[in-house]
Amino acid sequence: MSKLPLGCAIAGLLAFAAPAAMAQPASPGPASPGPGPREVPARSLPVPTAPSPQVQRLIAAPLRQGWNTPPTTPEGWRALAEAGAAATRLGLPGLRERLKVDVEAAEMGGVKVFRVTPREIRPEHRNRLLIHVHGGCYVLNPGEAGLPEAIFMAGFGGFRVVSVDYRMPPEAYFPAALDDAMAVWKAALQTNDPRNMAIFGSSAGGALTLEMVLRAKAEGLPLPAAIAPGTPMSDVTGVGDSFQTNGLVDNVLVAVDGFCDAATRFYANGHDLRDPLLSPIYGDLRGFPPTILTTGTRDLLLSNTVRMHRALRQAGVEAALQVFEGQSHAHYYRDDTAPESREAFTEIAGFFDRHLGK
Amino acid sequence: MSKLPLGCAIAGLLAFAAPAAMAQPASPGPASPGPGPREVPARSLPVPTAPSPQVQRLIAAPLRQGWNTPPTTPEGWRALAEAGAAATRLGLPGLRERLKVDVEAAEMGGVKVFRVTPREIRPEHRNRLLIHVHGGCYVLNPGEAGLPEAIFMAGFGGFRVVSVDYRMPPEAYFPAALDDAMAVWKAALQTNDPRNMAIFGSSAGGALTLEMVLRAKAEGLPLPAAIAPGTPMSDVTGVGDSFQTNGLVDNVLVAVDGFCDAATRFYANGHDLRDPLLSPIYGDLRGFPPTILTTGTRDLLLSNTVRMHRALRQAGVEAALQVFEGQSHAHYYRDDTAPESREAFTEIAGFFDRHLGK
Repeated sequence: MSKLPLGCAIAGLLAFAAPAAMAQPASPGPASPGPGPREVPARSLPVPTAPSPQVQRLIAAPLRQGWNTPPTTPEGWRALAEAGAAATRLGLPGLRERLKVDVEAAEMGGVKVFRVTPREIRPEHRNRLLIHVHGGCYVLNPGEAGLPEAIFMAGFGGFRVVSVDYRMPPEAYFPAALDDAMAVWKAALQTNDPRNMAIFGSSAGGALTLEMVLRAKAEGLPLPAAIAPGTPMSDVTGVGDSFQTNGLVDNVLVAVDGFCDAATRFYANGHDLRDPLLSPIYGDLRGFPPTILTTGTRDLLLSNTVRMHRALRQAGVEAALQVFEGQSHAHYYRDDTAPESREAFTEIAGFFDRHLGK
Repeated sequence: MSKLPLGCAIAGLLAFAAPAAMAQPASPGPASPGPGPREVPARSLPVPTAPSPQVQRLIAAPLRQGWNTPPTTPEGWRALAEAGAAATRLGLPGLRERLKVDVEAAEMGGVKVFRVTPREIRPEHRNRLLIHVHGGCYVLNPGEAGLPEAIFMAGFGGFRVVSVDYRMPPEAYFPAALDDAMAVWKAALQTNDPRNMAIFGSSAGGALTLEMVLRAKAEGLPLPAAIAPGTPMSDVTGVGDSFQTNGLVDNVLVAVDGFCDAATRFYANGHDLRDPLLSPIYGDLRGFPPTILTTGTRDLLLSNTVRMHRALRQAGVEAALQVFEGQSHAHYYRDDTAPESREAFTEIAGFFDRHLGK
């Protein structure tokens, strides 16, 4: 019997629930503290070797400077958004050329949009239209700075895309972004069969994608044929294990209580963060269209994404999940030359192809 | 311009690849070390709140004692396996009763098996049969100790299951486990249509599931209609970011270079660990049957699982992925009273139902 406790402790681990006495060893050693929080020592995480060199470069980048010193005034947020947008705009001409996509400013339903059109629309996509809602914690990426993901989708997927340039704080607060996106959706319904349309977006755009479906359900509007919320801010109440496990591991969002949570509160403007129109995981998900979700193993929103996937499956929704090795938040649309970027958007396009036009 | 570097650093993070000058801030502060390994400070990870109380209890359990002091002799391994098996066996009568499953020892193709049969077989499953290959790092869980997952599947899914009690070291080494599993597969083909059969298993059993398909392809044997490798040991060469990120976070396998890696080397017996029959991710995956993979966000094999999923998708295989919040390695078959356990196996059963009998 003297071997039993050790044997249980080790060998039981690939087996099923050991009896209660086994689940908690009677005399844990110093390396095995009692039940409760997990104490993890300081570690040096090497750059993983399986991703492409391009993604390895993204992973190897340091934590974003200033992630935990967000602006504290409306003017500060506006300046931050503008500075970031200026930087992103520098990369757009090259991106458009490499992916052979044209962009045109327009208006739909009284809302500013960009028409993002591949120079070669796939024949089977001629009558199809995707609506894109960009990310940026509801505050960042104004104007053309919201376009990169739309250009990736148009270029890799061969779809026409309309990207919503929704109003953001300090110009307008919750639910202005959603209102604008819905105005575009209603306008799109005037001239498009919803069976030929899908909605997609990442981060805040992933949340807005889900919120649009909740709102459309509530208003009795037709739903899109499919949606692709990428690493969605589906729960902004702080619930989610990866907020802790991937804290200071994700080099994009970095950790909780940084700029993104501050931006979300700035947008919410005092509104309850548990409202399903801010944390859609708490909404009624029954009847949602087929959904494909994308995340990475180092994503601060890994839990937001996989919990949303499980919630959709539990609601009886056809839902697919793709998780990319080593990637932090939304790394899949950071470098159009990374094979994983093409892979992610090809997967989403294929999912749309299986569900549109039915 | 003075705001630009900060603006880029923060706001670029939700946008696409900033120009090279932006990707690496010119003068990183002390909190943002240069590119390379990620230095993560010591942390205390609270028990996540979203999982069920049962799963929270599994997550709160301390790291397994003895995880990094594996046996060093054949006798030591045998004693460890026996001790663990004795502990697991204690829980089996209750498990069988709660899930209403009967177990009978038998033999197929000259190999010891257990017939694991639900007292109520679903009518649509009357002609269907699942083959189960248990986990335990190729060395642990002999005899009935390999049955818990099979009982979960039979009970939650309403399927007849045959669980392979394959030979293990020190009785027999690589590829004995696979040889035994293939002998059972061939025997099953004598009396069952492969369109009515699936193969499943977790950990080493997940790897064996994949290895069986590789071997069946190579031998020109019929393939199963679907497979469900759970948190598979699909790459035992050490490649996989979660070996690092979830090291000392996963309380089941705990970390690399522990007992499981030692057990795998014991089984491999000097054979190249990169052989696809030990690391199936390196095999030719074209033509694989529809596959559903299961893991958890704290799983040391999270990367093994999601990389396998991506590799299957890239090979054109229909492949689904489910990831459970906060769970360590194979937590989904540790407590049959956890709603997540029912959820995981119901999802797998539904996947089998969509693909069997076609």
